Amino acid sequence: MTKKKTITARRSILSANDRQAAANTRLFKKLGLTTINVMASPGAGKTSLLVRLLQALSPHGSVGVIEGDVASSIDTEFIAGLGYPVTQINTDGGCHLNAVDISAALGELKISGPGFLFIENIGNLICPAAFDLGEQARLVIASVPEGDDKPRKYPGIFMKADVVVVNKIDTLAAFDFDRAAFTAGVRAVNPAAPILEVSCRTGLGIDALADWLLALQKAR
Amino acid sequence: MTKKKTITARRSILSANDRQAAANTRLFKKLGLTTINVMASPGAGKTSLLVRLLQALSPHGSVGVIEGDVASSIDTEFIAGLGYPVTQINTDGGCHLNAVDISAALGELKISGPGFLFIENIGNLICPAAFDLGEQARLVIASVPEGDDKPRKYPGIFMKADVVVVNKIDTLAAFDFDRAAFTAGVRAVNPAAPILEVSCRTGLGIDALADWLLALQKAR
Repeated sequence: MTKKKTITARRSILSANDRQAAANTRLFKKLGLTTINVMASPGAGKTSLLVRLLQALSPHGSVGVIEGDVASSIDTEFIAGLGYPVTQINTDGGCHLNAVDISAALGELKISGPGFLFIENIGNLICPAAFDLGEQARLVIASVPEGDDKPRKYPGIFMKADVVVVNKIDTLAAFDFDRAAFTAGVRAVNPAAPILEVSCRTGLGIDALADWLLALQKAR
Repeated sequence: MTKKKTITARRSILSANDRQAAANTRLFKKLGLTTINVMASPGAGKTSLLVRLLQALSPHGSVGVIEGDVASSIDTEFIAGLGYPVTQINTDGGCHLNAVDISAALGELKISGPGFLFIENIGNLICPAAFDLGEQARLVIASVPEGDDKPRKYPGIFMKADVVVVNKIDTLAAFDFDRAAFTAGVRAVNPAAPILEVSCRTGLGIDALADWLLALQKAR
């Protein structure tokens, strides 16, 4: 009984979300914004990657960030301190962003393209996968210290990724991370997404990821 | 409208969960099991910590594990391979365990005390915090590579922790992890829980954590 009620509410929420996501997609196109939904575990390096990408991509056009967090505005203050446009969404315990959040945040952010809008989703490998935000691409970060089994344990989010980034690759020697096992785990659910290794600390691999994003922008 | 429906369904789920959690607590007491709800981000080292604790505590009585995962039975197979009793719960996309899951799993596990039952919750710093499983204590693991800001970003789960474990302490030199900042983040929401540093790789700090658990068991 309780279960049935929950499922009905969930379907209704997802369908409302999809309608708003479609409206977001139209607005992103109109504004000339290539929008990337960035998803990962807590501490995988979402904000660090965004900062690297903002630096790499800002010479090519406008850039902006919608920053999602359960609580705090630590990341927003950091990105704003670097001089990039950023708007905060606090979900107050909610485990993912939704399309309505994004629509509201975009109204506040006031950026226009051509350029890139990055959405930093809530640190979570489960809930964000179910909610389309209207983005052009989904970027999922895994990090070396988390272990190579994450794609097999959290297949839903890797299945829907357009690009998979392996961060903290500079710490490979300190952890038991088998690259072939990681790749096999991704490929079991996602045959096509490129898997790019980066270190946000050293900058390794950031250019290749920026090139992938610029090619995505051109392909619109 | 949709929001109201969701909130109503959520309240109803939480209240049903609390009733089952209270029944679980009575059953754990009757069976002589000190039950620990282990929560952390994906890849923080939940299973590695459990294996260390099973090794440390099995000389003192019975031990068992209820293993929660979104998908896969990798961890269950690993623990079973070491000869410890373990039952798997797959949530098939659900972002937390609930008290009904635990009641069902306990029926399958067939262990009795005096001893310890560890519940490995879903890898997630958000959803598991809201669901009481009837446990005697909540153990939250943070790991050095995730960064020292996790308590400030995910206060809900740290607020309810009875003990906080900082894992991968052997990798401290490779990351910007400020112990004082981490402790201040925990203390901002949780004045009392001990914060214990461990390395599941080297075994450092495991004895102190096992002692804390044995003291908890005696205090019942």
